[in-house]
Amino acid sequence: MSELGKHDTTDVVAYMNGLGGDARAASVVMRRVDSGLKNRALQIMARLIDERRESLTAANADDLTRARDNGLSEAMVDRLALTPARIDAMIEGLEQVAALPDPVGEIDGLKYRPSGIQVGHMRVPLGVIGIIFESRPNVTIEAASLCLKSGNACILRGGSEAASSNRALGEIIREALVAAGLPATAVQVVATTDRAAVGRLIAMPEYVDVIIPRGGKSLVERITNEARVPVIKHLDGICHVYIDATADLDMAVSIAENAKTHRYGTCNTMETLLVDAAVAAEVLPRIAERLAVHEVEIRGCERTCDILSEAVAATDQDWDTEYLAPILAIRVVEGVEAAMAHIERHSSGHTEAIITDNYALARRFMAEVDSSSVMVNASTRFADGFEYGLGAEIGISTDKLHARGPVGLEGLTTRKYVVFGDGQIRQ
Amino acid sequence: MSELGKHDTTDVVAYMNGLGGDARAASVVMRRVDSGLKNRALQIMARLIDERRESLTAANADDLTRARDNGLSEAMVDRLALTPARIDAMIEGLEQVAALPDPVGEIDGLKYRPSGIQVGHMRVPLGVIGIIFESRPNVTIEAASLCLKSGNACILRGGSEAASSNRALGEIIREALVAAGLPATAVQVVATTDRAAVGRLIAMPEYVDVIIPRGGKSLVERITNEARVPVIKHLDGICHVYIDATADLDMAVSIAENAKTHRYGTCNTMETLLVDAAVAAEVLPRIAERLAVHEVEIRGCERTCDILSEAVAATDQDWDTEYLAPILAIRVVEGVEAAMAHIERHSSGHTEAIITDNYALARRFMAEVDSSSVMVNASTRFADGFEYGLGAEIGISTDKLHARGPVGLEGLTTRKYVVFGDGQIRQ
Repeated sequence: MSELGKHDTTDVVAYMNGLGGDARAASVVMRRVDSGLKNRALQIMARLIDERRESLTAANADDLTRARDNGLSEAMVDRLALTPARIDAMIEGLEQVAALPDPVGEIDGLKYRPSGIQVGHMRVPLGVIGIIFESRPNVTIEAASLCLKSGNACILRGGSEAASSNRALGEIIREALVAAGLPATAVQVVATTDRAAVGRLIAMPEYVDVIIPRGGKSLVERITNEARVPVIKHLDGICHVYIDATADLDMAVSIAENAKTHRYGTCNTMETLLVDAAVAAEVLPRIAERLAVHEVEIRGCERTCDILSEAVAATDQDWDTEYLAPILAIRVVEGVEAAMAHIERHSSGHTEAIITDNYALARRFMAEVDSSSVMVNASTRFADGFEYGLGAEIGISTDKLHARGPVGLEGLTTRKYVVFGDGQIRQ
Repeated sequence: MSELGKHDTTDVVAYMNGLGGDARAASVVMRRVDSGLKNRALQIMARLIDERRESLTAANADDLTRARDNGLSEAMVDRLALTPARIDAMIEGLEQVAALPDPVGEIDGLKYRPSGIQVGHMRVPLGVIGIIFESRPNVTIEAASLCLKSGNACILRGGSEAASSNRALGEIIREALVAAGLPATAVQVVATTDRAAVGRLIAMPEYVDVIIPRGGKSLVERITNEARVPVIKHLDGICHVYIDATADLDMAVSIAENAKTHRYGTCNTMETLLVDAAVAAEVLPRIAERLAVHEVEIRGCERTCDILSEAVAATDQDWDTEYLAPILAIRVVEGVEAAMAHIERHSSGHTEAIITDNYALARRFMAEVDSSSVMVNASTRFADGFEYGLGAEIGISTDKLHARGPVGLEGLTTRKYVVFGDGQIRQ
């Protein structure tokens, strides 16, 4: 291991190999570190961030200036900013993660077998996690804290726009690790903006166990295609709400409004509303009235357009679009079968909800819809690690294997079998 | 969907796309099928196999003749053979899988959140599973039964040597599915021996959710490198037993003998024995004496060779070799740290055991060794789905994500979040 994990970035592949080797070595130590030490490191991190607000803000100002000079949009510049409120949120987040139960070492299902051995599952860290993200520098702290608490080593590669902020945060993380007596290389922030660093990070299975990309669809797709290690990925959220004929229509209106308008840019926002033909004429005008207040554009199927004069005709493409904007696609369907067929075909497998008062339909929808979250009579906006009680969230997985839906500390661990014997041999 | 899933095999890509589309459609039906129907299909399969022993044996005889004509070794020919005992085992296996609890639909962790929603996890099928295997035709029945019981559709691609047997078994499976009222395409046996079929099977994420290769290391590595869908893989088992200074030496001798000699060709067989220097001189001659009875060759480190005159000097390569043969590598080490460092470096992450009477060392070994099974005072040969009580096993995963260690029905499922609400919206 190089001294304190400091490496020369001139040769990017050699540099990344150095980070990888250091992370692998740190992961062996992190595997056995007790909760107290990990929490102490998190608390020191929180304190250091609080003490260094000024220097953090100064480092961030460099990024903001460069971003404006490079002509980034104000929306992008806003995402980059480490405002006092965002610094407070980082500190609070660290304290929350420190307060979460440690998943590592938990043993469950320990049972005696006829041979006399006792077999169970122990929860253990994944090892080394590579996280690739864009713009928001506070992700550096979120990702570091979750990987640390779950006993993993990690290599963080933030966006080049936030390089200066990330460097300052990386220095604080390193100091906190050392002060707590943990390996300085348990969390490493990639110190080069060379894109080849990402290419190497996702292609070194000898050092990295899993890659988590956090960012836009094109980033995630590129990484998934090129990675040589498993990827826990978060793709689009084309979420549906289906209003059944038996639905409480007040509830349906309220949930439809909330699922669409509570926030537009989130993956658990409803993008398509499906309405049973039996109640479409009654409920759609009420929903449209609410959406009009928020200036939401409606793109409807033919029957929707017949009911709502303000709706524009939806094209085939609309059913497969994640708008992330004040636009809603609406389709009138003949019953739950048609609704589920539409979802099967067009959903991205993120989150779907049924609004119904029919017991049998609720059970069917719950059992048959193949998405990471399936809901009855609730807003899709609840599909979130905090709302689900995970305490924290590293992302929402749209994969089926390993982690599905909101991913918290548990998703950053795996289980191994443990066997307690008294000298048993196989007959 | 084509009629009864029958496709023309002339154009391999079109053929595989046809199987894929049919499997995807069948998986939507299988997702909601109740346990009774699935068990009925398994029982009918068992009955049909029993009734058709003659035609199965005749189909198998074709494969055996072709194998001998092609000059396959007698060991290979033996693996191909559907003997009466193996037919009995297939029938018994089907009955056992029918008797296992159905994992699908199980909800756990259902908890109220402060918002009033109730959140839990529901176990659901993965969807479509592609299984690629070699020679042994009984795998066709094992794989089909596990995929069926876990509510998945599957596409099975057996070895070309067993083509005739697999076709006959595929016909029985199809008849049983239809007789039970399930989609005939829930289990499809690839009807071409063209290797391009495998290339397509592992590269159609739109139809296949996961690939499970069962076979030699080169098959698994090739598939892992080329697959465009997740792979649950089973690579080598370089398993270690470490005899600590406090070990009960009678127990140590008995476990060492069992772990090495119970069966040579299995992945949970011990390949390297690590012995604490404090007891090496006492225990190694006793172990060597037992191994001599089985004619096991010993390849030792320098200190081992000093103690055992019959040992030959191990080379660096020996520590990284899965012998699958009556050969054992032995290394004398200074304590548990050195043993764990050796394991960290050379283990394939399959199964490791410590033989000790020291509580603290047992706890450390258990917590720190990063393998799919970690044992105290038991033979590595216990790392097996049946011995662990899974009821059945589709393989032993050496991956860390999703399924690790022996994979039973649960490993063929995933979990989705379910949310029960009463009209809640996000504040």
